[in-house]
Amino acid sequence: MGHKLLLLTKANQQYRDLIEAQKLPDLEILDDNPASIIEADIWLAEPKLAAPLLPHAKNLQWLQSSFAGIDALMSPRGRKDYQLTNIKDIFGPLMSEFVFGYLLAHIRGHDFYRQQQQQKQWQVQLPIRHTSLQGMRLLLLGTGSIAQHLAQTAKHFGMHVTGINSSGNAVEGFDAIEVMANLGQTLMQADVVVNLLPSTPATQSLLNADTLGKLKDDAVLFNVGRGDALDLDALNVLLIAKPAQQAVLDVFAQEPLPNSHPIWERENAIITPHISAPSHPAQIVEIFSQNYHRYISGEPLQNRIDFSKGY
Amino acid sequence: MGHKLLLLTKANQQYRDLIEAQKLPDLEILDDNPASIIEADIWLAEPKLAAPLLPHAKNLQWLQSSFAGIDALMSPRGRKDYQLTNIKDIFGPLMSEFVFGYLLAHIRGHDFYRQQQQQKQWQVQLPIRHTSLQGMRLLLLGTGSIAQHLAQTAKHFGMHVTGINSSGNAVEGFDAIEVMANLGQTLMQADVVVNLLPSTPATQSLLNADTLGKLKDDAVLFNVGRGDALDLDALNVLLIAKPAQQAVLDVFAQEPLPNSHPIWERENAIITPHISAPSHPAQIVEIFSQNYHRYISGEPLQNRIDFSKGY
Repeated sequence: MGHKLLLLTKANQQYRDLIEAQKLPDLEILDDNPASIIEADIWLAEPKLAAPLLPHAKNLQWLQSSFAGIDALMSPRGRKDYQLTNIKDIFGPLMSEFVFGYLLAHIRGHDFYRQQQQQKQWQVQLPIRHTSLQGMRLLLLGTGSIAQHLAQTAKHFGMHVTGINSSGNAVEGFDAIEVMANLGQTLMQADVVVNLLPSTPATQSLLNADTLGKLKDDAVLFNVGRGDALDLDALNVLLIAKPAQQAVLDVFAQEPLPNSHPIWERENAIITPHISAPSHPAQIVEIFSQNYHRYISGEPLQNRIDFSKGY
Repeated sequence: MGHKLLLLTKANQQYRDLIEAQKLPDLEILDDNPASIIEADIWLAEPKLAAPLLPHAKNLQWLQSSFAGIDALMSPRGRKDYQLTNIKDIFGPLMSEFVFGYLLAHIRGHDFYRQQQQQKQWQVQLPIRHTSLQGMRLLLLGTGSIAQHLAQTAKHFGMHVTGINSSGNAVEGFDAIEVMANLGQTLMQADVVVNLLPSTPATQSLLNADTLGKLKDDAVLFNVGRGDALDLDALNVLLIAKPAQQAVLDVFAQEPLPNSHPIWERENAIITPHISAPSHPAQIVEIFSQNYHRYISGEPLQNRIDFSKGY
């Protein structure tokens, strides 16, 4: 008996072409019509597109998310009677490019030297404390596969790397691991903080006026995890009070970030439109194909989500 | 018999304090007066400050340069009757920060997203071909210690790395090594080119209208070696003709770069004031101290320059 695949992405035709090229055995790619929602046993889908259709998914056995973030499928009353897998390992390198690109731009004074160039001035001295990543203290909120990749990049650049997770258990590649209960203390010691946490009840507004207030006066904060982990209004107030701090924000509770939000105008905030680690269809199809072979041979799927944990 | 040290740097007092703290045996740090030039057997000096005083250096045995670039001491009629050492291993990490900071800023669209933010716009698509370093081809002109460090960083980011040197001999950490005779052909294949070559007669204007003309239409070119390796006027013309190319220039034949040079105004050129890999006195004093211990025990000095090669 064959399997039937539903595509629910913003690039369905591209996915169809890529999957057909894989010549996966016993797999029919269904057309984009409502009957397919009922018929398909496998979905390759963006979580936000899949969520409202799930109640009609009579034959769904396995949903491969094309994103890392699957919180749209984690509603407490949502279905949990299917296997959910997400995308993990391709995001580390892209995220390192994003985080270290903006971190180096800050530490090595790109803005400062751009202004010098505009004035045709030749001036060497940067008006900041740290002018090299060597010896700086990086705190990663989260210790999963993306965090582990960022830790590798950070060690290459000579940084000290602390990770924070719910267990406090040691993770390879980090200089130190802290438990979430020590968040406040740990934030005080960091020069650079990168939030990578998934969206769960425990991470909602974890970075709020209280915890953000513990950051060093010249700390650099990245939010590349989920938007709802950060109280954006509290951060906006903080950035006004502490002009030497720098925030780099790629994810927001509401996307696109509304025009009216004052943080667009902060000179010490960089706003990017959720592009830190974009999904490339070719990479996702490769992961889907590997998982499909596991699926049809009854092996455990890779990157399977535990509905009780939310990741 | 004790040794006598002359300091010839822009930060003599800082060097004096750092060296005194090392408590080096049998070493007297001379005062900053003309008699010291005659008296000292050891100089810790910036090459351009040392060069005009060398004819008076009656007792000079060893000159430790505080810079990597020592071409100011390489004049054909200059003295070669002393040991010259320079600074090598500290520059790799700093240079990686500079090169990959600006490279990531370009590839990951920092300017594009900054303009979006100024207009409070949420737009994802970058108008460039490469949007990740993964798979891009890096060409390093030079395969010495700095190039080797850059190669490591590039491999971490998933790039293909070719080095070019005078011998064509294999060097660890590179995917391929080419000889200088193949420069033109090799430039055609590169997405990113970083010049790290020292200043020698063979490298003068190596990057000229002819060789620069072989670069891809969206190549990124760094000059962080020596200014005279690059024909700046030819590059300026090229950047006007090929607006998708990007140049990042940190060294110039004349420094400061004269106000009147039109390249200051190129939108696809970034001009920085020779800050890609700054010398930090504490690191230099550490290298000096290690070499001093070798010097007094008669061991070969580290990073010794071969006057016949110029590096």
